[in-house]
Amino acid sequence: MRVKLPVVCLLLQAATIVLFAVFVRYDHETDANAWHRQLNASTTDADNDFYYRYPSFQDVHTMIFIGFGFLMTFLKRYGFSSVAFNFLIAAFGLQWSTLIQGFFHGFHDGKIHVGIESMINADFCTGAVLISFGAVLGKTSPFQLIVMTLFEVTLFGINEFIILNIVEAKDAGGSMTIHTFGAYFGLVVSRVLYRPHLDKSRHREGSMYHSDLFAMIGTIYLWMFWPSFNSAVTAHGDDQHRTVLNTYYSLAACTLATFAFSSLLNGEGKLDMVHIQNAALAGGVAVGTSAEMMLTPFGAMISGSLAGIVSVLGYKYLTPILDSKLKIQDTCGVHNLHGMPGVLGAMIGSIVAFTATADVYGGGMDDVFPLIAEGSRTAHSQALYQSLALMVALAFALVGGLIVGFILRLPFFGSPSDAECFDDSLYWEVSVLWQALQKYIWNFPSCQSTYTASGGGACRQNHIHGRHCACSG
Amino acid sequence: MRVKLPVVCLLLQAATIVLFAVFVRYDHETDANAWHRQLNASTTDADNDFYYRYPSFQDVHTMIFIGFGFLMTFLKRYGFSSVAFNFLIAAFGLQWSTLIQGFFHGFHDGKIHVGIESMINADFCTGAVLISFGAVLGKTSPFQLIVMTLFEVTLFGINEFIILNIVEAKDAGGSMTIHTFGAYFGLVVSRVLYRPHLDKSRHREGSMYHSDLFAMIGTIYLWMFWPSFNSAVTAHGDDQHRTVLNTYYSLAACTLATFAFSSLLNGEGKLDMVHIQNAALAGGVAVGTSAEMMLTPFGAMISGSLAGIVSVLGYKYLTPILDSKLKIQDTCGVHNLHGMPGVLGAMIGSIVAFTATADVYGGGMDDVFPLIAEGSRTAHSQALYQSLALMVALAFALVGGLIVGFILRLPFFGSPSDAECFDDSLYWEVSVLWQALQKYIWNFPSCQSTYTASGGGACRQNHIHGRHCACSG
Amino acid sequence: MRVKLPVVCLLLQAATIVLFAVFVRYDHETDANAWHRQLNASTTDADNDFYYRYPSFQDVHTMIFIGFGFLMTFLKRYGFSSVAFNFLIAAFGLQWSTLIQGFFHGFHDGKIHVGIESMINADFCTGAVLISFGAVLGKTSPFQLIVMTLFEVTLFGINEFIILNIVEAKDAGGSMTIHTFGAYFGLVVSRVLYRPHLDKSRHREGSMYHSDLFAMIGTIYLWMFWPSFNSAVTAHGDDQHRTVLNTYYSLAACTLATFAFSSLLNGEGKLDMVHIQNAALAGGVAVGTSAEMMLTPFGAMISGSLAGIVSVLGYKYLTPILDSKLKIQDTCGVHNLHGMPGVLGAMIGSIVAFTATADVYGGGMDDVFPLIAEGSRTAHSQALYQSLALMVALAFALVGGLIVGFILRLPFFGSPSDAECFDDSLYWEVSVLWQALQKYIWNFPSCQSTYTASGGGACRQNHIHGRHCACSG
Repeated sequence: MRVKLPVVCLLLQAATIVLFAVFVRYDHETDANAWHRQLNASTTDADNDFYYRYPSFQDVHTMIFIGFGFLMTFLKRYGFSSVAFNFLIAAFGLQWSTLIQGFFHGFHDGKIHVGIESMINADFCTGAVLISFGAVLGKTSPFQLIVMTLFEVTLFGINEFIILNIVEAKDAGGSMTIHTFGAYFGLVVSRVLYRPHLDKSRHREGSMYHSDLFAMIGTIYLWMFWPSFNSAVTAHGDDQHRTVLNTYYSLAACTLATFAFSSLLNGEGKLDMVHIQNAALAGGVAVGTSAEMMLTPFGAMISGSLAGIVSVLGYKYLTPILDSKLKIQDTCGVHNLHGMPGVLGAMIGSIVAFTATADVYGGGMDDVFPLIAEGSRTAHSQALYQSLALMVALAFALVGGLIVGFILRLPFFGSPSDAECFDDSLYWEVSVLWQALQKYIWNFPSCQSTYTASGGGACRQNHIHGRHCACSG
Repeated sequence: MRVKLPVVCLLLQAATIVLFAVFVRYDHETDANAWHRQLNASTTDADNDFYYRYPSFQDVHTMIFIGFGFLMTFLKRYGFSSVAFNFLIAAFGLQWSTLIQGFFHGFHDGKIHVGIESMINADFCTGAVLISFGAVLGKTSPFQLIVMTLFEVTLFGINEFIILNIVEAKDAGGSMTIHTFGAYFGLVVSRVLYRPHLDKSRHREGSMYHSDLFAMIGTIYLWMFWPSFNSAVTAHGDDQHRTVLNTYYSLAACTLATFAFSSLLNGEGKLDMVHIQNAALAGGVAVGTSAEMMLTPFGAMISGSLAGIVSVLGYKYLTPILDSKLKIQDTCGVHNLHGMPGVLGAMIGSIVAFTATADVYGGGMDDVFPLIAEGSRTAHSQALYQSLALMVALAFALVGGLIVGFILRLPFFGSPSDAECFDDSLYWEVSVLWQALQKYIWNFPSCQSTYTASGGGACRQNHIHGRHCACSG
Repeated sequence: MRVKLPVVCLLLQAATIVLFAVFVRYDHETDANAWHRQLNASTTDADNDFYYRYPSFQDVHTMIFIGFGFLMTFLKRYGFSSVAFNFLIAAFGLQWSTLIQGFFHGFHDGKIHVGIESMINADFCTGAVLISFGAVLGKTSPFQLIVMTLFEVTLFGINEFIILNIVEAKDAGGSMTIHTFGAYFGLVVSRVLYRPHLDKSRHREGSMYHSDLFAMIGTIYLWMFWPSFNSAVTAHGDDQHRTVLNTYYSLAACTLATFAFSSLLNGEGKLDMVHIQNAALAGGVAVGTSAEMMLTPFGAMISGSLAGIVSVLGYKYLTPILDSKLKIQDTCGVHNLHGMPGVLGAMIGSIVAFTATADVYGGGMDDVFPLIAEGSRTAHSQALYQSLALMVALAFALVGGLIVGFILRLPFFGSPSDAECFDDSLYWEVSVLWQALQKYIWNFPSCQSTYTASGGGACRQNHIHGRHCACSG
């Protein structure tokens, strides 16, 4: 690690700077000369897109760095790595995606033009990578993560270009481009990196009381700012406004469904922090495609409720099966938070597009479905294209994840051994006292007896969830 | 709990969805067709109210979910419940209040129209419920809380309608409608639910070092974003701007007063986290009514200073009396943070209204006191109506709290026993290791001796504050 | 402390209220009468500066209260003091700086006019004081801190006036006025307050696992919102937009450089939370002067990378030397995060000013370099004035810090003894159980042995870093 991580970071940063010097230029709203040439009686500083989008951008930024970062601090001995590798991945990812997305979306006269919209899109792209990170959390070296980011950002750009510019599907909040792609890409990578002897580290794959509270910081920020996420790049005016409203209601309904099913599926009716931290967010994913459409508030609530239910069911029943049968070790359960809700979101988007009429959208059709407005597509054909876009996202995720997974298996990248997973001390200077305390707590006598008293079987089951039982079984 | 909580959540969510389907529609700024019909040379997308209010909305949203949620995590073994029940209450409350407030304030042609302003108002309403939650924190089941939310939101809507639309008082930041109502409602509920044997759980009614730091996250967010709270629904332009400014100064002055009195009232001159976490916020409450008025910056500072002083005095002297004499067990001390400062805020609002003159307000009178501007009220009569509004809020809180309190006493709602209060493990899957550790720390030998050494008397006194002494007396 | 802290807080608050009553008035955008006189066909509520700057203000506010506050909670037994004294200093500082900056910048007809811009500037000024606080963290009483704030805010106002209004340098993000001034002022104060026997408290000058996670909350918020900090008071339109963009790229590049050098300089290639928490932020400081200029995105990245490298090198090699040779005990390492990157930022600003041409800036020259636009300065002379401004900031910091340091040494201010540093229990009511636990952990047998096993020498070296080793050497 001493040599490899610094070298890859510095090389990639140097290459990025050179590519920026060659290709990246201020756009017409950030360039002093260009913007001032535009200013006149009918265009004022207030028309700069900055004022329409910067508050949303900062909310998205908070979701990426605080939201994802702290959501993953639930692991009791992997908090430093969770929040800091999240930081590293996102800091590199946003630079690299500025280039990749710029080549595909913002290339003018051989230059990439950047401004607030490219910043939001770059953050979005890192979101997909951070979702994949959730699937492999604790089992990959920072070197592997940087390499994964390099490839995944590139594939994200191509996939997004095909979906938005060739298939011409709508996906403002990224149910397909971000969530479906990011989740299944990560799951396939995790499958390829399958560790048959992960049992050696399972005792660290759990939360402690305070680590769950840190994770709740991430959850709540993601939940609150998801309306900004879905609306950040939609058209000005009613579109941003409506997208926010729909996402707000979807999340609220999702939260109630999550609490209900979390309690319902537990033997004693207790709630599970894993569900609250994750499934309550699925409502944001599930309206990622449709929130800008005329989904109606109650439509948003139905979408959110369904997503919450599907997500809790996934944590309860599907994750253990993925782990034991399909050999997919999904640390954060991204399949339940981003995978299934992402697919659901794509389907809801397709259904809502199917029902689009000129009566309902009026002059707003041009913003939401420009091809329907100009007459080159019917609502029904748009719905088909929406479904096609989901197929594209899944195909890119599966094939891309497979290729990148095999690249990451190369021993060169310094994957941690099976006994060293979920452990900060492998990568971080950790106080000797903390390590001693952890070891002491480990051998804590009451734990063994409590564990034994609780039956042991429950504990092993919990291991599959990867959270509750801290005693080595 | 296994059946009741899921059933009530799912039933209420289903009912809400049906009511939304029947009654709730996009307003003219979120509806694609309606907004685009409005657009013309003089109305552009930039005029959409979204751009005037969304940043404020997100600040309010953060106060509700992070601010209130984390402020209550100070309890050492009730952090999961604090932040997650806060989440549940707010997620349901905002949906329900959209309906209730919609019937009273946004009903057009038989439909409730929703947009950014209704979202802010819905969040405001949940704020009142969360204040009441603070009074009963740790002593109520989630089923009770959901039922309390259902009734309190309904009463809030009626109370608010009377104050704003019938009495026609001004209360932009909700000193009366939110803080006074929410606090006294919660205190009365807590009185009705009085637990004579709460001593059995008092040893858990305290903070640990890190739980106090989590609570400070809540405090600081509430403090920072209070200017957005008070200004979120005031008129555009100078009104929002001035409200922010006044609240900012009030809070700053309140903070100094809080530090001063916290130290002054302590035997050794030490500071108390309870005061800093709570009393420093009273400045925001105290200008909730008057911040949009021409309060002047130094007027705001005087208001804030008074609120801080009143609040610290309340924590020090009044809370123990409420507990021992009036049998009001106020877990978070909402009487000191919201109750008294809310009443103070109403009185300040009345005084400032009394002094309103055409000279000072000019053309802005129409926004702040429309009835004075149009000549149907004098400043003096407006001041009287402001005071009347306070009476209305108090009456609704007392009578409403009484009724709802008795409803919540029904055994059906599964209130925790006196020995099970303030304990997450009743509702949550908590790691067996954590529980074992807690038990171990409990019987920690040094604690007993330190406790004995510290006199014991101080400890019993601290029990009344509900925070400091962790040793069972 | 019982008498002194309350008295100084109340006296200063009372004096501030009186001064506000005499001097402070709403500006033309917050005053009801004045604003409504301005409104006409071409000026609407949307033109109120509130809508251009309030979102940025709230981001800056978050940096001041959450960012700085939590960044300093890394100390394992000084979390209450870190976040709460930060709160106290900032709450007083923003009031006092409204007066001081108002006298220098916003004085009209004998009155200080306040609005959103004065609020941002007041927060900026407290930022400088909080940087100085970082240098003396854990070694000063709250009374000393309040007095330091009183004087430093005053000096800040004079220094800023000279730099911006007399030298007419540009410094929107405060590389010179905030970071350089704040850091060197604090370092000189720390030098004057040098404690030869600080060894008695060094065992508390470290972090624990969770305190480092709390500190990361501060780090990430500072990192995310730095673009808002640098752009909060730049001109509308392209200027705010470009400043945000440049800062965003600078920080991203800085993060990669920080990870690279943190790992590179460690014997085992491990990462150090101290570096990630601090050095990754240096990129924001380093473009504080130049971000509003036509720095170009790749120029921003080079600036950020350099800052990250300089900062990590400083933590590794310079801080121990400052401590042992120059007797500067810099608790948070503000020299590495604000001092050197601030000077670097001033130099970069000078270089970018040097290269300014009419071709590149066009009509925007008037906003960025008004004196060049009007022909009274060349780009080269502007560059010289930028450098002169750095000299002014350094001179004010050194002389001011010296004077204020000697004032703070007066025994009257109740500085903690050498054995009581970095300890919350001196100022706060702390649970007796927590204290007992700490003492127990202290004498934890495994610690001694682990410590001995780790060689001891490493531990003593870590003491100089002030973070890792918790065992008393």
